[in-house]
Formats: sequence, structure tokens, C-alpha cells
Amino acid sequence: MPALPAALVRDLSALLGNAWLTDPSERLAYAYDNSRRQALPDAVALPSTAEHVLALVRACREHRVPLVARGRGTNTTGAAVPVAGGLVVSFERMQRIVAIRPGDRCAVVEPGVLNGDLQAALRPHGLFWPADPTSAAYSTIGGNLACNAGGPRAVKYGASRDNVLALTAVTGAGELVHCGSATTKGATGYDLQRLLVGSEGTLALIVEATLRLTPLPPQRRVLRAVYRDVASAAQAVARLMAQPVTPSMLEFMDAHCVALSRDVGGVDLPREAGALLMIEADGDAQTLAHAVETLMAVAGGDGLIAIDDAASAEAAERLWAARKALSPALRTLAPGKINEDVVVPVSRIPDLVEGVQALAAEFALPIVCFGHAGNGNLHVNLLFDPAQPDQAARAQAALAKVFELTLALGGTLSGEHGIGLAKREFMPQAIDAATLALMRQVKAAFDPDGILNPGKLLPDG
Amino acid sequence: MPALPAALVRDLSALLGNAWLTDPSERLAYAYDNSRRQALPDAVALPSTAEHVLALVRACREHRVPLVARGRGTNTTGAAVPVAGGLVVSFERMQRIVAIRPGDRCAVVEPGVLNGDLQAALRPHGLFWPADPTSAAYSTIGGNLACNAGGPRAVKYGASRDNVLALTAVTGAGELVHCGSATTKGATGYDLQRLLVGSEGTLALIVEATLRLTPLPPQRRVLRAVYRDVASAAQAVARLMAQPVTPSMLEFMDAHCVALSRDVGGVDLPREAGALLMIEADGDAQTLAHAVETLMAVAGGDGLIAIDDAASAEAAERLWAARKALSPALRTLAPGKINEDVVVPVSRIPDLVEGVQALAAEFALPIVCFGHAGNGNLHVNLLFDPAQPDQAARAQAALAKVFELTLALGGTLSGEHGIGLAKREFMPQAIDAATLALMRQVKAAFDPDGILNPGKLLPDG
Repeated sequence: MPALPAALVRDLSALLGNAWLTDPSERLAYAYDNSRRQALPDAVALPSTAEHVLALVRACREHRVPLVARGRGTNTTGAAVPVAGGLVVSFERMQRIVAIRPGDRCAVVEPGVLNGDLQAALRPHGLFWPADPTSAAYSTIGGNLACNAGGPRAVKYGASRDNVLALTAVTGAGELVHCGSATTKGATGYDLQRLLVGSEGTLALIVEATLRLTPLPPQRRVLRAVYRDVASAAQAVARLMAQPVTPSMLEFMDAHCVALSRDVGGVDLPREAGALLMIEADGDAQTLAHAVETLMAVAGGDGLIAIDDAASAEAAERLWAARKALSPALRTLAPGKINEDVVVPVSRIPDLVEGVQALAAEFALPIVCFGHAGNGNLHVNLLFDPAQPDQAARAQAALAKVFELTLALGGTLSGEHGIGLAKREFMPQAIDAATLALMRQVKAAFDPDGILNPGKLLPDG
Repeated sequence: MPALPAALVRDLSALLGNAWLTDPSERLAYAYDNSRRQALPDAVALPSTAEHVLALVRACREHRVPLVARGRGTNTTGAAVPVAGGLVVSFERMQRIVAIRPGDRCAVVEPGVLNGDLQAALRPHGLFWPADPTSAAYSTIGGNLACNAGGPRAVKYGASRDNVLALTAVTGAGELVHCGSATTKGATGYDLQRLLVGSEGTLALIVEATLRLTPLPPQRRVLRAVYRDVASAAQAVARLMAQPVTPSMLEFMDAHCVALSRDVGGVDLPREAGALLMIEADGDAQTLAHAVETLMAVAGGDGLIAIDDAASAEAAERLWAARKALSPALRTLAPGKINEDVVVPVSRIPDLVEGVQALAAEFALPIVCFGHAGNGNLHVNLLFDPAQPDQAARAQAALAKVFELTLALGGTLSGEHGIGLAKREFMPQAIDAATLALMRQVKAAFDPDGILNPGKLLPDG
């Protein structure tokens, strides 16, 4: 990889001063993300204003140097890894909450604000921003928007894309654009702000976001329902989603997960459990009990073994124990894990889980499924020992089959993690050639020289 | 305007047979929309399959002939008027409901399906599609999507764009593309389907839509709250929207509207009323009463004159009478009306209404405001006599000032009608030059020869 052009280094170090990092040990901290891939950037820029970002992109465009936007590197697909070298643009110095406007139910933030910090600032106003990835405490709003991050609450409140009103961004052409307006309705020209959400820094760098906020429900209460098999749990999911009391979370665990929580995690769960649902309702003191009753009635039916209602915080903690025991228990099975986040229509969940179990048998690897059942968004975890090359190869082969199965069921590759490097090669199976070609043309409209996060999301043409 | 190329006419009449109209009297029926503008198309095509649409676009592209997509012509902005001649493509023969999948809460439809017909087909499944424009009974899903149609229910359930999962469409380049997937979550590449919503047929022609459905609430109940002035009503709106019991409708009428309903419509309303809110809750038998109580409590406060709760259907009809009396009453003031649908942040509603009243005085024309307050989406109606040229000119001058005011308040030109011809010239005030240039590049990526609905949405470059 050639070193950066001297003129670029001179101009940007003059612009950024101590926010321009070139020391290899400093750069190393920006070389990886949670995908365990890594590639050293040629330099790291820590802009503190939109003007910095604009100057950075313009200078890089002049010299055709790649830029990779970075929040806190929590993403799992390699989307933040600078595989083509160039600059990493880390937004850690742009973490101002510019405004919270409770009367308009919106907040204006810089991209480097942590999701958790925003939620804490919103709480006194009785508001929240719905996207709640597991990483919320240490992932940024900009990163959440770049990946269209979701989480369990998305089933009722939507993911990142559903909760953005306006974005200010710098395109790959070095233009500052203002997309959308701070209103909850709009039909004024093309909807560019939702297009930017999920584009993984390949179209533009977000420098300010106006987020749609939701009133915080005062109370929540959780049910744990255990089913004989996946089919009856999936039927319950479909019933739960087809009636008006939408659960605020609707999480699924397959038989493997239940067994792990019980046998490794020590959680009290029946031996004959073939699937488990965590069903949460939210609301106020006057109506929550009725919502819980409704959900409990709807969750019942053929195949239900047991249903538990957590009336107190301690009881809720006991019920969530099954879910919390899962991640540590998975590690006892194998040190390596590929965690995918495929999505299928809710009615196809049983086919997905059954198909995945057939693949587990075929490739002689444990594969477990859990996740956001109300959206059909399951985390398929392929477990293997990376020290055993044959296991790693089998896991990769099985992964390709998992995607094939998902697509055959009318689903898609990713629900909330994105594509990045990890799933790029599978894009031609998910999206036909004409649509991919259109995506490339859209990319060219935003980033004519291809300097924004090259080698990500879209497969090579 | 030159006649259509002979080769095009030959090929398309062979393709379409009796679905190819060239007789002037037949074409006349496709020359106008609800904007009262009109322009005769050179021919009208009535495709019945996606293959027809593909062949139409490819043939027109070869000859650089414009195509204008048409649902049922209910739009108010001139978006369906073929001002550049060429073909109108009417989707009246593509009105098949392809599938209703209650377990996946989605429906697959052709673009010519009437919104009202879809709702009727969904009702037995206990589901609905949220977009509910006034024209629902006789407007199409394709047209609703093209304009991002909303309606009163959008305050709780979102507008068209918020309720689409996937679209199959033919781009201006003559390519069939598949955007999105039939899942309620997705992070697989660029979100092209929401970009197509609201693009008014300038990017692609939708040939199939997969819509996100919502469970139908079993009951609804309405409140009518009368306030001393707009400021206190607007404060109530902000309070209502900042708490967790989201109203299923939240409609506003200014003092003029209240006076018209009372004095012309004969509705019993207090003389001192400065503003009125219609507040609807929906839910089930067990919780609706509490929801109504909550909304009633929140709607109270400084400036409230009276609040009425409609426990029965008859009582509800009595309360809605104020709103229903409005449109006929408006006609008694003046025969001409410009009905705009600007949006402002909820907190700026009082400034908008006050500013509009100042313009009414300045231009000596009645201007009344009513509409979807929960979204800050007000219908500003400028009333004038078209037979009086000075009045029509004053109305146009006042309209420009209404847009200027809206933009100064942080709002935008349109909430649910779109831009079309009517507001195209105001786009440079609403959207900066760099963002408009980007929109033009996006347009070029979809429609490189500019054959789709030329002269609409984007101003001349």
C-alpha cells in the first residue's frame, strides 16, 4: 500500500493538529472492529466539526484516498475495517447532544454520541430512542445509523431507520447535504435520509442526525413461555404479532439454547422444552395487567408446556436468566462462533430452525438459533473451534448453506448487523444483478470516485 | 409536440391491443388530475402485467418518449398530468391483490388496487394498511406510494413510506428491480424501496408492492376539545404526543374553521373557541376507557374551554360533525381554494397559524388552517374567487409567503401531497443546491434519459 501523498498529510495535519494520528501504535487501535478482522489505516482523523469532515473528504477526494467512518468499532461485519488503507475517520470528538426538543419529540446529535448516553439524557424527559443493540452502552448513534441497528425493542418501536427524521452528511463528492426535515411527516423530494441509514459509510459521512423519539412507557412486564417444539412457538409468535397488543419484546430460543441454559446455566426449565419465548409488554399501571393477560392468552394453545409471569423485578430477573445464561453457556460448547442475523417472514421460522438443524447434522457442528422472533430476525450461531482448520472450513461451508436456506424461505441476509465484508460475497444470491447494478449507480451518484469505505457492502462489479 | 414515432406506435399497439388508446376522446380522460391542471397525452397504455410495463419503458426509452404513471388521478399537485406529452401509463388493469399473508402481516398487491378495496379485503383478517388519505375509496396503492400518502391515522401508524416492505419496479433505464424483502427488518444493501416511495413516478414505475400490515384495533373512541386559542391547543398537542398513549388521530381546526362549522354548518360550538382538537384513541374493550381518560386528562390544562367524550357511535358522529361541516362551509366563503399541506415541528404550530393569519390580513384573503396536528401537518387553505384575477394573484403571492413562513419555522413544503408541478418552483427554497444536485444525480441513476414523469418534483436544473 503506498504511503499517503505528502501534500495530503501536510494539509490534514495542519487542519487537525493533535487530531491527526499517524503513529503506528495509535493507528492500531483503529484497525479492527468486532468482526475480528483487521487492517492498519494509513492515518486516523478525529474531526470535531462538520467543517473538518468536509475538508477531510475534499482533500481525500483530490488524492483518491479512501475514508472509512468509525463509531466505536462494535460492528460485527468488518464494515469499519480499512481494508483498502487510507484514513479512518473516528467520530469520538463529535459527541455533542446538540438539542433535545421534547415538544417535537426529536433530538439533534452529533454522530459520535453513545447510544447509552443519549438514552440517559432522554430519560428525564420521559423519552427514548428505540434502537437498542446489545452494544448500546458503547456504540455510537452514527454507527447505529450506518448499520441500521435494531435490537429487541424493534418489534414494537422499529429499528434505526424507522426512527430518523433528518441527516446532515458529507457525500463522497465532498458536498454537505441536508436530507429530510425535523418533522414526523414529509413528502418533499427524495427520501435520502433513510437511504443513508444502513449504507455503512459507503455513500456519505453523517455529521448530524435528527432522531425521532418515543415516549417512554412507565412500566414493563415479562412472560416466559415454553413450548414443546419450534412449530408451536412460531405459531404463537404469528398469533402474538397479528393482534393489536404488540409486545415490546418477543425473543425466541431454540431447543439447543434451552438445553444450554438449563444444563450449563443451571436455569430451571422443563426437559421436554423444544423452544422458549420471552414476551414483554409495556404500558402504564392501569393497562399493563390487561396487556399481559391478553398476551398470555394469545401465547397459549397447542404445544405450550408452561408460561410464567414475572410480577416483580426479581421474578423478571429470574425469567431473563435463561436468556442471560445463554452467551456464557455457548462458549462452553466451542471457542469459535459465527453469529449471523438472518431474517425470514415470521411464518417461516419453523422451516429456518429445522433447516438449520439439518445443516448442523450435515456439517457435524453445533448450530443454535435465538433472537428477535417478532421480526423473524434470528441469530444463527455456528459454533466451532478455530484451532481446528477442518471445523472452521465446515463452519464456512455451513454458513453459505444457512444463507441459501434463508433466501429460499423469502428472507434476507441481515436484519440489523449489515453486510460489511462478511456477507458481501453473498449479495449476488440475495439481490438480482439489475438491482445490484442500480445500487452501484446510486453509490456512484453519492461517491463518484469510490473513496468512501471501498470494498464494503456491494460485491465487486 | 411531435406525434409519437411510428415504430413505437406499431410495436406498442401490437403489444397491448385494446389496452393502447390513441383516440383523443379516450386520451382526454387521462389528461388531468385533481390539481385542475391538464395536458393531453399522446397515447395511453393500460398494462396488465409487469412484462407489459417493462416492454413499455424499454420502447419509450429507445425513442426518448416520456412516460407518466397514473393511479386514479386523485393527486392534488399535478404529478399525474403529462405536461411533456408522451404516454400515460394507467395501472387500472393491474388491480390484483396477489396475496394476503396474515401470519407475516403483509400483503402483496399490484399498483392499481384501490386503497379502499385492500382495506375491505384485509378486514376479515383483522388487519389494515395504515395510509388513509381522504381519497382512500378511489385512490390506488401505487398512487399512495408515489406521493407518500398519509392521512389522520399516520400520527400513530405512519404514512405510506413507513408501511412498505418491498417493491418491484421498472426503472427509467428499463430494468426490473426488486427492492427490499417481505420482512419487517432488513439491513441488506441500500434501502431503495423507501426511496421510491414519494418519488412521484420520476425514478421507476412500481409493478408490485409488499405492504406492511397492522392489526386492526377492535374499538375507537373520540374526544372533542375546544380551546381558548391556538397556543393552548398546540401545547395540548405537544403534551398528548409526549406521553405513551399515542392518539390514533389528533386533528386540529383553527378559529376560522370553528366559526365556519358553528355559523355556517350549524354545529353547537362555544363562541369563544379559538381552536379545536379531535382526539381519537383506539384499543380493546378493557383498556380503551383508560386510554380515553388519560388523553382527556392530558388534553386538559390552561386554555381548555370544554371537552366532550363520545361514548356511543351517535355521539361520535355528533362530535365529528364540526369537522365534516367544514369543507362545505369553506365553499360558502369563496369558490376557489388552494389547499396546501405544509408540516412544521409540533411546537411551531402556534407560530404557523399566527403567521398565516397575518398573511390573511396582509393579502386580504381568508386563510384557514386545519389538519393532522400530531404530525404538525396542517392543511392551509387559501380561499379566493378565481373569476377575480386580482384575488387569484393575491392567493399565489400569499402562498409563496406561507411556504417561506413554514420553512423559517423549520418545516417543509409537503407532508402527504407531494411536490408534483405545484410546488416544484419552491424546492430551491426548501432544499439547498448541493442536496438538490444530489437528488438530480439519484434521478439520473434510475432514469438516465429523463423519460419518467419529466418536469415534476425536481425544479429545472
